[in-house]
Parts: sequence; structure tokens; C-alpha cells
Amino acid sequence: MKTGNKVIIYDTTLRDGSQTEGISFSLQDKIGIALKLDDLGVDYIEGGYPLSNPKDKSFFKEIRKNSLQNAKIAAFGSTKRANKKASEDPGIKALLATEMPVVTIVAKSWDFHVTDVLNVSLDENLKMVSETVKYLKTNDREVILDAEHFFDGHKNNARYSLKVLKAAQDSGVDSIVLCDTNGGCLPHEVEKITANVISKIKVPLGIHTHNDGELAVANTLAAVNSGARHVQGTINGLGERCGNANLCSVIPDLVLKSKFRCRYIGNSELKKLTEISRYVNEIANFVPMPNQPFVGSSAFAHKGGLHVNAIQKNRSTYEHIEPEAVGNERRILISELSGSSNILKKVEKYKIEHDQKTMRKILNRVQDMENEGYHFESAEGSFDLLVKKVLGKHKGFFDLEDFRVIVEKGKNGNSITRATVKIKVNGVEELTASDGDGPVNALDGALRKALKEFYPSLSDMHLVDFKVRVINPKEATAAKVRVIIESRDHKDTWGTVGVSENLIEASWQALVESIEYKLLKDEDGD
Amino acid sequence: MKTGNKVIIYDTTLRDGSQTEGISFSLQDKIGIALKLDDLGVDYIEGGYPLSNPKDKSFFKEIRKNSLQNAKIAAFGSTKRANKKASEDPGIKALLATEMPVVTIVAKSWDFHVTDVLNVSLDENLKMVSETVKYLKTNDREVILDAEHFFDGHKNNARYSLKVLKAAQDSGVDSIVLCDTNGGCLPHEVEKITANVISKIKVPLGIHTHNDGELAVANTLAAVNSGARHVQGTINGLGERCGNANLCSVIPDLVLKSKFRCRYIGNSELKKLTEISRYVNEIANFVPMPNQPFVGSSAFAHKGGLHVNAIQKNRSTYEHIEPEAVGNERRILISELSGSSNILKKVEKYKIEHDQKTMRKILNRVQDMENEGYHFESAEGSFDLLVKKVLGKHKGFFDLEDFRVIVEKGKNGNSITRATVKIKVNGVEELTASDGDGPVNALDGALRKALKEFYPSLSDMHLVDFKVRVINPKEATAAKVRVIIESRDHKDTWGTVGVSENLIEASWQALVESIEYKLLKDEDGD
Repeated sequence: MKTGNKVIIYDTTLRDGSQTEGISFSLQDKIGIALKLDDLGVDYIEGGYPLSNPKDKSFFKEIRKNSLQNAKIAAFGSTKRANKKASEDPGIKALLATEMPVVTIVAKSWDFHVTDVLNVSLDENLKMVSETVKYLKTNDREVILDAEHFFDGHKNNARYSLKVLKAAQDSGVDSIVLCDTNGGCLPHEVEKITANVISKIKVPLGIHTHNDGELAVANTLAAVNSGARHVQGTINGLGERCGNANLCSVIPDLVLKSKFRCRYIGNSELKKLTEISRYVNEIANFVPMPNQPFVGSSAFAHKGGLHVNAIQKNRSTYEHIEPEAVGNERRILISELSGSSNILKKVEKYKIEHDQKTMRKILNRVQDMENEGYHFESAEGSFDLLVKKVLGKHKGFFDLEDFRVIVEKGKNGNSITRATVKIKVNGVEELTASDGDGPVNALDGALRKALKEFYPSLSDMHLVDFKVRVINPKEATAAKVRVIIESRDHKDTWGTVGVSENLIEASWQALVESIEYKLLKDEDGD
Repeated sequence: MKTGNKVIIYDTTLRDGSQTEGISFSLQDKIGIALKLDDLGVDYIEGGYPLSNPKDKSFFKEIRKNSLQNAKIAAFGSTKRANKKASEDPGIKALLATEMPVVTIVAKSWDFHVTDVLNVSLDENLKMVSETVKYLKTNDREVILDAEHFFDGHKNNARYSLKVLKAAQDSGVDSIVLCDTNGGCLPHEVEKITANVISKIKVPLGIHTHNDGELAVANTLAAVNSGARHVQGTINGLGERCGNANLCSVIPDLVLKSKFRCRYIGNSELKKLTEISRYVNEIANFVPMPNQPFVGSSAFAHKGGLHVNAIQKNRSTYEHIEPEAVGNERRILISELSGSSNILKKVEKYKIEHDQKTMRKILNRVQDMENEGYHFESAEGSFDLLVKKVLGKHKGFFDLEDFRVIVEKGKNGNSITRATVKIKVNGVEELTASDGDGPVNALDGALRKALKEFYPSLSDMHLVDFKVRVINPKEATAAKVRVIIESRDHKDTWGTVGVSENLIEASWQALVESIEYKLLKDEDGD
């Protein structure tokens, strides 16, 4: 068939994406994600599998109350069972009951799956496909057929796999999606097989890939190159095992790098990509992958000094696209590999780039601290405090009198971990104690107890991650350790660092800086 | 040129991979990774950039003391500067001083970079390339040329980009690697441009890609399809921004799915892939990506009930390869020994592989402990103790009565870190105390004091590295931590692991196991 250059985006984050290990979306989560997807400009949102899951059923009820701008909502199910009429099949009834305008049904197209998993004859499967499609069409639905394991099926028995597609086509299906369900195909296979299908099938074709060979995005592009014009995938590549094709990469690869275009996602919608990626991570309670293409926090981060230098001359020297195009930003990392251009870039907001003396002071301070084992790459909070100190804009919020941590373990396995902290805030002495799961947790507890009356906004902040690393691992427990603490409030995430031969002291430094950063940030109204 | 089906694997984890945000490998880390890479069977290991980094320089000195099975070590640098003779250029001198047999030099091949970043004329750049290659060849080095930004250069000025390659070829270079430095190319572009180069250049060609479009693996395969036979990449796709081509995916895609083969990595080496991936994550103190293709913990995890059912009928229904082929395992609750080839391999010395009952006991114990957060990839000492416990071959060397650690810090900055340990050895009670630089050092000191009379060989052992990582980084200081301690005596190095909500308790476990491992090893005369 003839195909234009418009590609339809079909999102399945809420259905296939919810198969990801560790994910369990609430109804509210699903509605929130659907609204974001609609705002981004996807063409279809697959809402769920109404037969299998009561939460999915409620989703369809709930989403009808919202008016969407662009997206159509699809309900997902499978072909009717062998021994039931379509009109009596519980799965098909559940699909119609959703009242969604689009229904996507999965059908077997690999002969081996038909005979060995479904346990029906090859002909029976064809009948199941055509009766299901016909029945849904007489009920005025747009019908999309997902041909499960299509590529494996085509490799094994091309003739039969095409028969399944023809059965759907002859029954009036609206589009057919070729699925690499096991995710094991290579791009040139997908390209060739899709081209073969295009030459034989007149219905618009789509592609659905999985990432088991780290090739889901490439396989999607390969199918589009061969003429598929409907692309299925998920935000952040969520999905069972290694995930589905990642729409956060597929969409910009298409829009920014190829002759293909989306219907609703143009340059201005593309700028929402980083935000939606982070939103879904937040909802899923997943730690974001810093190196995720396009939307990751490291995707436009530059570490080597030569690179940073070149980037400042011309951004295209080491960037494949402008980070703003996908709503992301360039980050210059502070590290031992970096020269002064990295730091210049970092202190832009203080407008001191022409103050040579101050700049040199900052640079020297960074180098001295790096020699002592500090590391600012994942501790931007501490770096900002360092700059503030040099500029005389830093202030402390309390003075430490002393702290003590005790960890005891007895023969019976019982253990006690207790910290006491004595500090002075505005001349007032506070002595507090806290037990904890570990020494740092106990210290954190005691310090917060002491500070909470004075600085109530600290209750909005919590620690997210804690990492310890030996810096000069020759003498191990007597060597210096570096502690990195990551903290977060309702708005931001920041890292702070502490270094000492003593793990507790290093943790204390990072804890204190984390609190200082939070309080200074609140004062600045940043 | 004519090309066979053998692909050379060139690993750059230690050089390009060390550009990853948050990574700072110690010398010890680099040696450890190099030995694992050699054991896996890569052809080349790029060790680092001797000019830029004293740590990289020491690496070359240190690695010469080890005899490798297969891998050649390459030193990395760039072409000589415009205004210097090659023999007087500090970068070139640093490369030769490494005494490595292979030297890889990066050269500009995008005209815009030559004129706008290097600030030299196009002809001057050609001279720099040919003089550098010639000089290194007269010094008997194998010379590999990395053509930086080759694909962007070819798109912009194909003629000039090819001139750079010809200059290298005419000067006697051994191989030329086409680099997609910015990571923005699409597979069909890489395929076409590589084919064009192959038709014009006789020197063996390689490919080096980055993952900015989530296409690094596909771009690598595309170049191989067009005739490149040298593949650069990193373990876990480490690297600046979105990383380099991930060898943990490229290698199995080639070996298991294509007509191409590696020189040293056959089916049995491939089984080490999951282990090396986890080892590098542990060294880098990175949280592994569960959904990483081939080697991730979710890569063969089956969630959907239908899938699990089908998998039990036939594994190929929802798996693109057998997980064991890459040393990974299926994660559904049919605990079969088939999933435990790693473990089989590790207990070889105990000759129990036919004792199904014992093997199942070990496997269950490992699974239980992994569920609690233990991790044996870099803790083979602890794994060995676990096996000995199951076999009844384990014994303790002392009983703990109690320990106590105190860390105090006063206003004047003075601090005290002191541990007391009370243990019983052969019925004799020993109570000792030790100060330390940190709590673990103090505990270690007190425990050794108590044990030294009874077990003098402990003086031959010391701790080399100490790593802490939060396992469930949601609540930070209240979450579980895993401590890995690496120890060494005059002969061996071993790792042990402890897990607890309490950092001190986890460290204590790892300390005790480290000592037990040492003493049992000495008794066995291993």
C-alpha cells in the first residue's frame, strides 16, 4: 500500500507498561498518566485489559469523564475463545462494555503457539480472528489487531502468519500491528519481513517491539522505514522483562532525525517529553536512569574538559540535538577531568564570570577539595554551598556543640543504636537523642528533632539515597571514605558530599550540608 | 576489502566508560575490571589516557605485572599537536612510555571540528594524522585510528572525511574505527556510510557508537553488516551522556543471533556475561538496571500468568534466548537446578554436582539470601562459606559475646572513635578495645587484637576495599545497606558481604566472614 510520512503514536504504558516488574499503577495514577499522554499528543492510549483486571475496568469508566484533546482510548483484549460465539465470549463482552471507540485484540500468528499453547487447530484460529473482528466491526468499533509473535511466526511459517493477517483484513479490521513479542529480532529481519507484509496486505500496518536484544527502538524505525505507520511503545520503555519500545526515544528519533512526522507531536509538544518521562518515573516510584537517551539527567551532561571547551564554542560539537528540543538541559559536570570552563558554566546564575579573582578562588577551592577526595559531580548542593562560601553568601543555621553515636550488640543478637546531638540555634541550646536503624539514621533523627521547631520547612525534606565509597582503597577501613547523600523536597532533588577517614564524620558533613542547602534554597526562593 | 565473519571486540570501559557521570575508578578497580574482561575473552582492552590522568598512567605500569590470556592492552591518546614534531609531542611520548603494544589515537575527521575546534587548516590535520601514525609505526606499535565524528563529517564533507582515513591508511595504520561520537546517527545512515567507506578503504574497519538516540547497539550491528569487523563498546554501556554501545548486548546479539562470531568469546565464555555486568556495577557502585537486556535481573522474569504457563510448556514461547546462555536465569517459581549453572561452576571443587539434594539446598539458601539483599558476585568469600555451611564443613573460630562502638565529636572538632569487643576463643574470654579512624576500623582493630594470639596468620591479611550501598533507596538512612569488604593476603584476594539496616552490623558480618574465610582457606591449604 502507499504510505505517507505521518506516523501514528499508540501508547501502551498503561497496559503493556504495567507488566513491568515492581509496577502497580493505581486508578488515579492511570488517569494522571493518560491526561499527560493526551497533552503530549499521542494518537491512541491503550487503557488496559478490562477482562483481567477490575482496576482497568474502572479506568475506562473514569476516563470517560475527562475530555481529551487528541487521543483516542483503546481497550485491549484477545480474540474470542474457540468454543464460544463472539457475542457470548466474556472477553469480548468486557471490551464492548468499556464503551471505548477503539478495541485492540491480540491474535496468535505463530503456528507453534496456535497448536501448542492455545491448543486449537490452525484453521480454528483463523476463524477466531475473523469472527472476532467481524463482530466488533458490526458493533461500530475501530478494530486494531495485534499479531502476537508475528516475526517469529513469519520465520517459522510465513504462509500461515500471513493467512492470519488476511483473515483479519477480509473481516474489515482497521489496522494490523506486527509484534516482536519476545523482543529477539534484529533490525534487518524486521525491515525485510515488514516489507514482505506490506507487499501483500492492504490494511495500514503497525509495529510493536520489545527490547530483549536492546534493539526495540531500532526495530521500530526499521518497520517504519519499510512502510509501517503506526508505532506502539511506552514512556521510558516500561514493559515486561526488558520493556517495550521506548516512546521517549522513538518519537524524537522520528521527529528530529527522519523524514517522518507525528500527527500531533510537533516541535512544541516535543518539549514536554522530559517532563512526562520524569512524571511517569515519579508515579511508578522508579529511580530515573540518568543516562536515558534524550530525557535522562546525564543525556546532555559534559565531563571531559576538552568537550566542555568545544561545547562552549559550538553546541553541535558534542550534542546530537539541542537539549531544549526535548525539554531537557545541558549540564556541565565538575570533576577531576574538567578544566575551568565547566565551573564558569556552573556559576552563571551568580553573574561572576568576569570576576577573575573570585573565579580563581572557586577553582582553587574545588581543586583542593577534589585532592582531599571530594567529588562534586553528584553533589551539586555541596558545590553550590562552596560557591556561596567564597562569595560570602553562606551562613550556618546552627552550631554543633557535640554529638555521640553508640552502636552496641550483645550475645543474644540484641542491638542498640543511639545518637545524641547538642546544638545551639540562635543562642538556644538543644540536646536531643534518637534511636535509629543505623548510626546515620540515628544522627539524622536527633539533628532533625533539635532543628524542627526553628525550621519547620525541614519536615518537607527527606533523604533519598546514601552511598559510601572508599577513596584510596589500600588500607580499607583506615582509608578515607566519601559519603554522598541525595535529598529531596516537594520540588527539587540535590546531592551533598562528605569526606573523612571516619564514616560517621563524613556522613555528618553530608547531612549538615543537605540541611543547609535546603534552608538557603528556601530563603532564596529558588 | 573482503571480510570474514570474525568480529574483534575492543572494550573501552576503562577509558570512555570512565567518562560516565558519577564514576571514578580507582587503580585497583581498573585492574580488577581488566582481568575480568580478559577472562571474558575480549580482544583489546583500552586502559586509559596516559597524558590526562596520572591514575591511568599507573594502570599501564601495574597491568604489565599481570599475564593476560587473550587481551591486548591499548593506550589511548590523540594525534600530535600542530606545532610539535611527533617525537616531541608530550601526548605521543606518554603513549610510548606506557610500553603497551597497541596505541589508539583519535583524529578529527569532521572538517568543521578541524577548523573550528582544533583551529588548524584541513591540510595541517591530514599531516598531523600521517606523521603521528608513521612515528608510532616506526616505534613498532599496532596503531588503531579512531576517526572522531566520522559519520557527521561524512554527511557534511564526505570527501574530506575520507581523505583523513586515506592519510592514515597511507601511513601504515593497522585499523580505522568510524566513530559516531555524538551518538545521533540512525542505523540506515551508518549502514550506508560504512558501506561507502568499505568500498574505498582497504584497512580493516571498526565501529564506535554512542547511545544518544537509543540506537548504539543497532548502529554497531548495522556497521558490522556493512563490513566493519572491529567493535568498540563498554560493559553495561557505560560512557559519557547516554553511554557507549553496550557490549553486554552487542556480543550476544552477534554470537547468538547472527552469522558473525567473536574470536575468543564462544558459548562458554558468553555464560560469564551476567557476572561481569554485575561485577562492574558493583565496582562502580551503580544500581543495576533490572530491565537491562540479557543480563538484567528482570530480563527473563515472567509476570503474566499466561506467559508463565506457556513458558512451562516451552521456554521459547516468551524467551528470545535461553537465559543460561548469558549466565542469567529465569525468574519464576519453578526452582530447577537448570537455572544455576553459575553455582554449579562455583562448587566444582567440592565435587557435588551430582548430589541433587545438596545442590538444591545451596540454591535455596542463595535465593533466600538474595531476597534479603545479599549479593555474591563480588563476594565469593561469603559464597564459599555458605557452601561450606550447607556441606557441614564450616566452623567458627570464636564466639561473640558483645561489641560496642562509640563515635564522639566535640565542639573543638576533636573526635574519638573507639570499639570494644568481647569474644570467646576455645573457652577463653578476651576483652579488647581499639581506637580507629572510623567505626569499622576500630572494630577491625579490636577483633584482631583479640584473635592474634590464637591465629597468628591473620597478620598476613588486610582489608583492601570497603563499599556500602543502599539496597532499597527509598528511605535512605533507614533502608537496608549492603557492605562489601575486599581482603587480601600474600596470595589471594576475596570479597565478603554483610546486609543489615544497620551499617555497623552489616560491616561486622562482612568483617567476620572475611576472617573466617582466611582461616578456613589456610586450614585447607588452598
